[in-house]
Amino acid sequence: MKISPSKLISPRDINFLLYDWLDVEWLTDSPRYSHLTRNDFDSLLDLCLDLAQREFATHNRKSDENEPVFDGAGVTLIPEIKDSLLKFYESGIFASGMPLAVEGGQLPHTVYRACFAFFQAANISTAAYPMLSAANANLLLAHGSPEQISKYVLPIVSGAFFGTMCLSEPEAGSSLADVKTKAQLQSDDSYLITGNKMWISGGDHELSENIVHLVLARTPDAIAGVRGLSLFIVPKHLVNADGSLGERNGVSLTGINHKMGYRGTVNTVLNFSQATGFLVGKENHGLEYMFHMMNEARIGVGTGAAAVGYSSYLQAADYASTRLQGRSPDQKDPESPLLAINEHSDVRRMLLASKSYVEGGLALSLYAAKCLDEKLISTDAQKSDRLGLLLDILTPILKGWTSKWSLVANDFAIQVHGGYGYTRDYQVEQLWRDNRLNPIHEGTDGIQAIDLLGRKVRMQDGAAFNELTDQISKTISRAVNRSVGARHLADDLAKVLEQLIDVSVLIDSQELLSKRIADAWLYADAIGHVVIAWIWLEQFLASEDMVDVFGESKRATAQYFYTYELPNATTWLNVLNARHDLLLKLDSKIFLP
Amino acid sequence: MKISPSKLISPRDINFLLYDWLDVEWLTDSPRYSHLTRNDFDSLLDLCLDLAQREFATHNRKSDENEPVFDGAGVTLIPEIKDSLLKFYESGIFASGMPLAVEGGQLPHTVYRACFAFFQAANISTAAYPMLSAANANLLLAHGSPEQISKYVLPIVSGAFFGTMCLSEPEAGSSLADVKTKAQLQSDDSYLITGNKMWISGGDHELSENIVHLVLARTPDAIAGVRGLSLFIVPKHLVNADGSLGERNGVSLTGINHKMGYRGTVNTVLNFSQATGFLVGKENHGLEYMFHMMNEARIGVGTGAAAVGYSSYLQAADYASTRLQGRSPDQKDPESPLLAINEHSDVRRMLLASKSYVEGGLALSLYAAKCLDEKLISTDAQKSDRLGLLLDILTPILKGWTSKWSLVANDFAIQVHGGYGYTRDYQVEQLWRDNRLNPIHEGTDGIQAIDLLGRKVRMQDGAAFNELTDQISKTISRAVNRSVGARHLADDLAKVLEQLIDVSVLIDSQELLSKRIADAWLYADAIGHVVIAWIWLEQFLASEDMVDVFGESKRATAQYFYTYELPNATTWLNVLNARHDLLLKLDSKIFLP
Repeated sequence: MKISPSKLISPRDINFLLYDWLDVEWLTDSPRYSHLTRNDFDSLLDLCLDLAQREFATHNRKSDENEPVFDGAGVTLIPEIKDSLLKFYESGIFASGMPLAVEGGQLPHTVYRACFAFFQAANISTAAYPMLSAANANLLLAHGSPEQISKYVLPIVSGAFFGTMCLSEPEAGSSLADVKTKAQLQSDDSYLITGNKMWISGGDHELSENIVHLVLARTPDAIAGVRGLSLFIVPKHLVNADGSLGERNGVSLTGINHKMGYRGTVNTVLNFSQATGFLVGKENHGLEYMFHMMNEARIGVGTGAAAVGYSSYLQAADYASTRLQGRSPDQKDPESPLLAINEHSDVRRMLLASKSYVEGGLALSLYAAKCLDEKLISTDAQKSDRLGLLLDILTPILKGWTSKWSLVANDFAIQVHGGYGYTRDYQVEQLWRDNRLNPIHEGTDGIQAIDLLGRKVRMQDGAAFNELTDQISKTISRAVNRSVGARHLADDLAKVLEQLIDVSVLIDSQELLSKRIADAWLYADAIGHVVIAWIWLEQFLASEDMVDVFGESKRATAQYFYTYELPNATTWLNVLNARHDLLLKLDSKIFLP
Repeated sequence: MKISPSKLISPRDINFLLYDWLDVEWLTDSPRYSHLTRNDFDSLLDLCLDLAQREFATHNRKSDENEPVFDGAGVTLIPEIKDSLLKFYESGIFASGMPLAVEGGQLPHTVYRACFAFFQAANISTAAYPMLSAANANLLLAHGSPEQISKYVLPIVSGAFFGTMCLSEPEAGSSLADVKTKAQLQSDDSYLITGNKMWISGGDHELSENIVHLVLARTPDAIAGVRGLSLFIVPKHLVNADGSLGERNGVSLTGINHKMGYRGTVNTVLNFSQATGFLVGKENHGLEYMFHMMNEARIGVGTGAAAVGYSSYLQAADYASTRLQGRSPDQKDPESPLLAINEHSDVRRMLLASKSYVEGGLALSLYAAKCLDEKLISTDAQKSDRLGLLLDILTPILKGWTSKWSLVANDFAIQVHGGYGYTRDYQVEQLWRDNRLNPIHEGTDGIQAIDLLGRKVRMQDGAAFNELTDQISKTISRAVNRSVGARHLADDLAKVLEQLIDVSVLIDSQELLSKRIADAWLYADAIGHVVIAWIWLEQFLASEDMVDVFGESKRATAQYFYTYELPNATTWLNVLNARHDLLLKLDSKIFLP
């Protein structure tokens, strides 16, 4: 793609990640992507950056200053959200990411994710509508009937319908086992859905003709817990056989949440009162299907977090190159010229740390997308399984680690701006508030950590974990045959990797789940740092022959991460290794004042 | 004081810190505080908590929702700010903290700081006015003439005047060497002050009859740099010899800053146009005098950060005790009762971490205040010097460490609340935004780190650093003769302390200041963690005989800090020990996209 200046995501970096590192052009050799060329990728990437800058970034502040208004009946959003989404769909970008079978462009996921990241960087809250709609459509493509696909997915691809995911309830946020919404089978094979759903992003609006809610509910004879949940399509307007809109369904908006940021994404409380729903797949398999959407949303959230942090970093880097303040500590002449603040080591550290988090997070996201593409084109069943396992274990890391550390980049961007960063004259304060949602929604970072350590590390006798460590080991093996610099990094990574494996085995030997996951949050930090260190070694190797400033910047950032960040992972693994039971044996009364 | 429930700061903790740990009652044996009894302390503490809850906390949200308005001439604030400050001054609280010589109550600093922390926890932005006014008055008490004290300090004590500090300018924030405001001596010994000042908190308002600006400016023949700065009193209204207000001075408000939080404190841009100023002390000693106010303000900021984090923690702890969600990981029956979320280890960890940061920060603040009190009553000149040195080195740690880590407690408070924490239905999101200012103003955390490593650690051949490590060693020696639990903590601390000393010596051996302070930010994190670990060992020892839940909570929090936090200091010291030059040798071009 064209290397134009941007405060969203560096196009030079996207070029590097897609072509120099991940070699996505190679995907076009496969039947699945043979209808495409690199030129197609580049044109679309250029279009996306342009549209993101012109249409999405331009109303980001306005969305923040004018949150959605609920008048008791409907929601009013600023018109720019609808206008920009209309252009987004009309330009064919949304459809480009969907399969050929539903009139999409079947772009590789890796390329689409990079394309979409520009929109997330420009305006995370407007981008949330197509992000959720795509995940909704992909769930139905995987688990819906042909009729459901034709009735609901095709209009989602065209932008006529948007989609939501309706899991949480006022008393069941992280705890889906306690979902209470009821589904009663009717004589026509539809179900009557009754209950309340909370925290539903895009739950009501006039941005699209219709909204396809995917709702977790419980049939009367279902068993308790998550194994008694079924999944239903509950459209805002019923859809006639010919695709035209029928009557209004029994879904009503009862309130909206007033958020600290991310304000353009209306977040709603919905009441389902005798609403008509249509079962997806089989009864009692709802959560399993929903995970298809949830995993995609988690990846979307992790990528979005990196994108928002990335934009914040670029703004800080720009400010630091133009703001003159102070002199070298060794310069004692107070009349000597001022330095740009990016010459001060404290500012450099904040910029390097931020760069390592956001570029690392984005790179991990594109790597995971490449795994998906490779899985889709693979003709080797075993390889396909391994790629699936790798994706499984990387998902909670991408969601949890990236949303946590990208927020640190947002924080540093404020600090680099000094007092100005705390004012609304600059965008970095909004981006910090926006990005604060990402460690919460689609499963908090605590939930991701439990998913990772309680499930993913252990699944299939550790197969996913082993696949991950095999991949990391392969990179290490490649690196030791390269430069001295690469070898140093590889040696450091090898040590921490060995320690990670040992600690993982030790934790896995615990009998009780409560003991295994008591320090899951710390394990998640540690494995996240190891994975990002691996991704930085990959980037170091891919940039090693580049003699320009860009190559230098990649290598310096890798070195920053290994010098200042990776040692923390060793400490955290040591703490884990000691198997403290402090958190388990506490009396909760100590938290009462 | 009375042990009543509070969401600001735990009164039980204040009792513990003041009486069980710091034994402030002992201060009343000294002539300076012999006019007071513990009953006086308790009455004032009770009054402060009550007033903070009834008058300050009640308009905190309103201040956030209605930021100051500048109509081109003056500033409008919500009336509750003035009303509550009136009650604050009328109740005698402000005066209680000032010396007897200016009609104050001469309360020990330790007690006043605890009293004032309730107001900071309740409403940091309303509390900023008296915080700055007190620091302003104390500077004048130390360096002003008797006439200046009578003219400006007495009305500050009564609340008729408020005070500001005017250091920064639009192009000189952290870099005071570049202050450009001019001061021209007049025939009547006053000066004409001309220039622009930026980021002036409380720079204009109608909360008081007058505002005493303390302004750094440069006389025509002054040398460049900070050694050419002089300090001037520039009142908003000139004051006649009889104390009545004279004409309006040439200070005008040219704009206000629109902040992300802390909104009740109006932050201004001031223009000084031929304003009349009065020299404080001697010419060219301005920065030295200003440090008197700056240090007090830094301590105020650090304490305020702990207070805001503390309130946020108490709200999270309360929420976590009532919010039911999920079950024990070992409980497989989905129909078993739900647990309060403070039973989940991830939530416990966030609560314990928060508790360790905010209670640790507040304890450090009170410890530092006790040093000041001991210094004031000491009749031993050497001891007095040592206490002064200890205060010198603790100030940047209290400001820097506490404002950084208390903000993490604010972040965790949001996370504990889940989605609700991201909405404006709960206060934790505002407290997070409010507290984000504290690592920026009165010297960013980067500036604190440079002050610490570049100046304080090295001053007087390391005398301040040695005094600090001596105090820590004394605590360790006491602890090793106590319980097994205490000995374990003491052993851990002793190891890290030794490492801190070695690394400090190594860094000090560097010839160039640029090399010494290149990783000052990391050194500040490390020494901060060591100091807070010491403060937790102190609290562990002071609570060791307490058999109630409170004592247990102190000991568990100390154990949390030693188990999960202190090991990070070892890692950071190891990184420092390697003396990397990565940050110094970078080409700043790598930050351009």
